Amino acid sequence: MESRTEINKLGEFGLIDRIKSGFSNKQPSTILGIDDDAAIIDTGNNYHLLSTDMLLEGVHFDLSYMPLQHLGYKAISVNVSDIAAMNGIPKQVTVCIGLSNRFSVEAVDAIYDGIRKACESFKVDLVGGDTTSSRSGLVLSVSVLGEVTKKEVVKRNTAKVKDIICVTGDLGGAYMGLQVLEREKQEFQENPEMQPQLEAYSTIVGRQLKPVARMDIIYELADLKVIPTSMIDVSDGLASDLMHICSQSEVGAVIYEDKLPIDQMTYQTSVDFKIDPVTCVLNGGEDYELLFTIRQKDFELIKNHPDIHFIGYVQEKNKGINLVTKSENVVAIQAQGWNHFKK
Amino acid sequence: MESRTEINKLGEFGLIDRIKSGFSNKQPSTILGIDDDAAIIDTGNNYHLLSTDMLLEGVHFDLSYMPLQHLGYKAISVNVSDIAAMNGIPKQVTVCIGLSNRFSVEAVDAIYDGIRKACESFKVDLVGGDTTSSRSGLVLSVSVLGEVTKKEVVKRNTAKVKDIICVTGDLGGAYMGLQVLEREKQEFQENPEMQPQLEAYSTIVGRQLKPVARMDIIYELADLKVIPTSMIDVSDGLASDLMHICSQSEVGAVIYEDKLPIDQMTYQTSVDFKIDPVTCVLNGGEDYELLFTIRQKDFELIKNHPDIHFIGYVQEKNKGINLVTKSENVVAIQAQGWNHFKK
Repeated sequence: MESRTEINKLGEFGLIDRIKSGFSNKQPSTILGIDDDAAIIDTGNNYHLLSTDMLLEGVHFDLSYMPLQHLGYKAISVNVSDIAAMNGIPKQVTVCIGLSNRFSVEAVDAIYDGIRKACESFKVDLVGGDTTSSRSGLVLSVSVLGEVTKKEVVKRNTAKVKDIICVTGDLGGAYMGLQVLEREKQEFQENPEMQPQLEAYSTIVGRQLKPVARMDIIYELADLKVIPTSMIDVSDGLASDLMHICSQSEVGAVIYEDKLPIDQMTYQTSVDFKIDPVTCVLNGGEDYELLFTIRQKDFELIKNHPDIHFIGYVQEKNKGINLVTKSENVVAIQAQGWNHFKK
Repeated sequence: MESRTEINKLGEFGLIDRIKSGFSNKQPSTILGIDDDAAIIDTGNNYHLLSTDMLLEGVHFDLSYMPLQHLGYKAISVNVSDIAAMNGIPKQVTVCIGLSNRFSVEAVDAIYDGIRKACESFKVDLVGGDTTSSRSGLVLSVSVLGEVTKKEVVKRNTAKVKDIICVTGDLGGAYMGLQVLEREKQEFQENPEMQPQLEAYSTIVGRQLKPVARMDIIYELADLKVIPTSMIDVSDGLASDLMHICSQSEVGAVIYEDKLPIDQMTYQTSVDFKIDPVTCVLNGGEDYELLFTIRQKDFELIKNHPDIHFIGYVQEKNKGINLVTKSENVVAIQAQGWNHFKK
């Protein structure tokens, strides 16, 4: 009898490691493969960056509260975010779409309206794709091609001890937005005459439904002539993504609870929902902010940036990856991340 | 009340045209967008080629007869075929996979075994992807990056009057293989003790389950110093794909029934199934052969190639796209193609 191992035994990262172990790169132009936000391809003068992400109905989005325009926008934005995380500029995207017959031409128009808005906003061209029917849910798979000079590319595995750990914007909002949407959905199902109360939560609901890749930060860092020593986008959650940087760079880290950026609405909503705000910041994913490290000497150049927060520093690997709480306790950080396969 | 237009009113090509009309390319590096087998991106010295294809369970494959290894192989091969159709060399691929909990780790291993075999055979590196759970069927979405020199890139819209129309291999096999598989599946469902009788049909069943992109032809054309004047891979069917070349090149064409390549097993099976062999060759898709045009002066260079067939020539647009039958009737070619949305 053949043996059967359940995927949730490995988890997503375990599965990726297993897949990766069976492949090795042979093309001289492949500078970096599966290990980062995007692959790095040598084009001679520059690097091309290639990344891909798939959004599946019922797993990544729920059409009962996800407007189709926002879905189209989000599909592009999360891919652009991977290029930003390499310090690159996105240039072209392709979109594969699987549609069941429950979707009308008008629904497709709405999705592509969102895609077009994102393409215009991030200055990328839609250059190809695949359009097919789907027997079940809506499927959107996007690939993005970006560009970066060889000197400016930023990877995950190059953080150095004493570097300063930075994060953009604020964290936990997308996760709390999702909690609000799920609650409203449940209440609506119980009482269909109820009108959703989303206005009060528009910021965090927007963070969930229509995340904006932080290309603005990439352009500003370039203007300030700061090249991060390592970078990743916060898609799985700060804890998980910091651990990616640390394990790949073979370093440890210290971050401080009182430095973690959380906005007022996220904070208040998490208290209302009886979710620890720090857990929300550390483990709520999908913020699509940028987490990066800089040399200490570059601190002066960006210390006054209103949207970059300095949350800690890189330390030796054997010292671990720790959070210093407001009460000055030092606790080891656990990555919860997103494990789709546990659902 | 909002109006609702069904997608099958437009069909796949109509839908693609509608999507396309809302986008225009702005990046100077975008040489060609949605109109061809792959997008063309200027990298300075060369062109990069980018293409993507998605395979959905229940639409593109049926796991009751599609071995997982073959599925992995096919997902890569059909993407490589798009790069071949641009006269390019594939270099890197990314793979997005959506898995429901019905799939075990061993099943995932089998899919990636096939992906690895294809990567080795076509000399491409797997450089990225996305691994996620799926609430319904298996989803595979692959993107491929290829390379071609600026002088050697071949598009669809550059066929010229008097060019010779060539096709590789033989046609209709993949379609008849699918008919055999569907028949066996039905018989198995009616009588589960029956053993499938596939050995006798192994060639055409193989054409359906594990199509091989014709990179061999691309390397041979380069050796022979022949650059086609236009090219496309036969994925929708000869009629449909020839019409793509003709409409985009603004030309007409004549092809001859007695020149159409069909192998003996495809012919015999189509007769057994009471399907007209010519219909099968013209409209059976998924052969992943190459359809291309050459200058008359290049005919001498490839006339003895054992696997390239000369099926007709390009003529003025106003003369139409015609088939000359064995009985010397001239009939206009209709593209049936694959319309997933009609299913």
